Amino acid sequence: MASSPSSNKGITLAQALDRTGAVDAAAMVRAEARQGNLTKPPGALGRLEHLSIKLAGIFGTERPAIGEKAVIIAAGDHGVVAQGVTAYPQEVTAQMVLNFLSGGAAISVMCRRLGIRQVIVDAGVVSDIKAQPPGAGTGGAILPANPDLRTLKIGRGTGDISQGPAMSREQAVQCLEAGINLAVEVIESGVDLLATGDMGIGNTTASSAITAAVTGLDTHETTGEGTGRNPEELRHKAEVVRTALDVNSPDPSDGIDLLSKVGGFEIGVLAGVIVGAAMMRRPVIVDGFISSAAALVASAVCPASRDFMLGSHVSAERGHRAALAALELEPLFDLGMRLGEGTGAVLAMPIIEAAAATLSEMATFAEAGVSDREPEDPSASSGQAGA
Amino acid sequence: MASSPSSNKGITLAQALDRTGAVDAAAMVRAEARQGNLTKPPGALGRLEHLSIKLAGIFGTERPAIGEKAVIIAAGDHGVVAQGVTAYPQEVTAQMVLNFLSGGAAISVMCRRLGIRQVIVDAGVVSDIKAQPPGAGTGGAILPANPDLRTLKIGRGTGDISQGPAMSREQAVQCLEAGINLAVEVIESGVDLLATGDMGIGNTTASSAITAAVTGLDTHETTGEGTGRNPEELRHKAEVVRTALDVNSPDPSDGIDLLSKVGGFEIGVLAGVIVGAAMMRRPVIVDGFISSAAALVASAVCPASRDFMLGSHVSAERGHRAALAALELEPLFDLGMRLGEGTGAVLAMPIIEAAAATLSEMATFAEAGVSDREPEDPSASSGQAGA
Repeated sequence: MASSPSSNKGITLAQALDRTGAVDAAAMVRAEARQGNLTKPPGALGRLEHLSIKLAGIFGTERPAIGEKAVIIAAGDHGVVAQGVTAYPQEVTAQMVLNFLSGGAAISVMCRRLGIRQVIVDAGVVSDIKAQPPGAGTGGAILPANPDLRTLKIGRGTGDISQGPAMSREQAVQCLEAGINLAVEVIESGVDLLATGDMGIGNTTASSAITAAVTGLDTHETTGEGTGRNPEELRHKAEVVRTALDVNSPDPSDGIDLLSKVGGFEIGVLAGVIVGAAMMRRPVIVDGFISSAAALVASAVCPASRDFMLGSHVSAERGHRAALAALELEPLFDLGMRLGEGTGAVLAMPIIEAAAATLSEMATFAEAGVSDREPEDPSASSGQAGA
Repeated sequence: MASSPSSNKGITLAQALDRTGAVDAAAMVRAEARQGNLTKPPGALGRLEHLSIKLAGIFGTERPAIGEKAVIIAAGDHGVVAQGVTAYPQEVTAQMVLNFLSGGAAISVMCRRLGIRQVIVDAGVVSDIKAQPPGAGTGGAILPANPDLRTLKIGRGTGDISQGPAMSREQAVQCLEAGINLAVEVIESGVDLLATGDMGIGNTTASSAITAAVTGLDTHETTGEGTGRNPEELRHKAEVVRTALDVNSPDPSDGIDLLSKVGGFEIGVLAGVIVGAAMMRRPVIVDGFISSAAALVASAVCPASRDFMLGSHVSAERGHRAALAALELEPLFDLGMRLGEGTGAVLAMPIIEAAAATLSEMATFAEAGVSDREPEDPSASSGQAGA
């Protein structure tokens, strides 16, 4: 069963866990020293400096270089929609996948604008992803093969988690391995910075269950409105989540158990993407609430993957702060967004690129011939450069 | 003296004020309506939606398109460094301009990485901007003509504001008009999104004086460490600012008075850039503390320019929050940065581009064939799309 480290086809979860190492502490020390010599007052780039040092540890060099960027958007359906927890009908999941492919969704527009590759995964959408030509009587033709769409279909929607498990343990492992292998493939094609994105009517319900299971918080604290509409629906949704936890009793220390009992196919694939990025020593940006639930699963499955995750935004969805706290991820910004799709994560990409590039490419005081600050000796002349 | 509106060479301040109008309220109404039809839950893009509506007002269309981007970095020296308010010697201003030109500064690295044009203005650096080839005995040769460097040299460093005015009223107007005409030229070359940046040893002292004059706050509240080192120096600096206000008595309602008495050449040019952008109906992103001081001057000179300003980050420099509050600008993020150069403003550009692009380019529910949310009628079926 042992495969050589250079063979990245069909990596198993066990192999991935075995190959995922720690970040490079020595590179981080060198990066910190380099930051102190760059042409700026010490610390003046604030959190960009901390981020750059983390990136040095991930890439294993004090001059990390980020090439291409990609967001992996996984889509899946959720049986729990039968409990009336969402405002949009289930067919919207498949319709939005088509919208991603045709470039009309928010994430698609952002990716086009910011030069980011969009990889879309049908992890477990109920229906086939078909184009619906207006007026066509045949039920629509399948879209031409698109390199940006991967059809995995680990299932056709999860089971209703308020009645039983979302999926089998075998399906959970399939999700993770599919995500791991996809991350490897994308990184090997030249991508150095990954982001996670999601689409799935009902997936805030599953994410709420995962977050409550891991944090121990009451489900009312981890349940937000999602796409819903009013306080009564919100209360109902939190109760459905409570029922899901009572019925399934997921073990939060066992990521596969957690994912199979109250997760989702897209959540599992994204967790796998995170593990795969860590194995490949590349940073992966965690988007909003659903992506953070995937990160909690990844963290339980592969604790070493934590150090390869980067925070992006804090979502307006209730429960996201708790998930980020459990992940020990500090968001870079709070713009009141709650769309998912990876939209928060891709907006963090230019900031993360800037952090890496300033560390790697800025001149030092010596290189630029810029005078460094004067010694902090009160008897020395202080700033007396006559005007 | 009247020139036709199409002639943008040598625009006077009076002409600019005359030509600067209000944002387009009707376009904002159309933008808000369009946001409601795009393929996402209402409000799910959070502050990006508000930003997009503001951009619609600025561009005068509900589908704003942003072409090229540029940061204008103005540099100037400050006579007040004679009072020992800075940790770096004055020659660093000129040295950093060379670092901008050779691409080694933080802003240069970010601009290269993010596809942003860097326009550098010598607004009033003490020394000539000269390359210093290592080992050259002749004092260095002037750099070859660089399209990114504009040499205005409205003066060679300002007067010491703790002793008298920074500059004459005529020089203040020269700064503003130079900035206005530069903004016009850059926008006419295809730039649709401007950012302001600064370089000038001593300029946090001038910015503190401007902010205290406008807000009425105590100078200890508006004075931060800048590039300085310790609490005693900080107290001394706040006292120098207090002296500058006492000696000069600037009138905060008269932007030219404010700029001439306690401003700086680079601050005046940036204020002019902001007025010029407003006149041309293009958004201008305000960077940190010094850029916000310039925005306060612009706001006093041309109140209509306010609606064309966009916030970016909140700097770690004390006084910046007060300046932003006075400008009624809400920052997009707080990364603990305090470098200036436009580094915070350019990091906001991708977010602002994403806001405009999502409004302009996302598909509507009807266009994409995506089902909109179900009506909020409790008797209607709610999410019963059987899995």
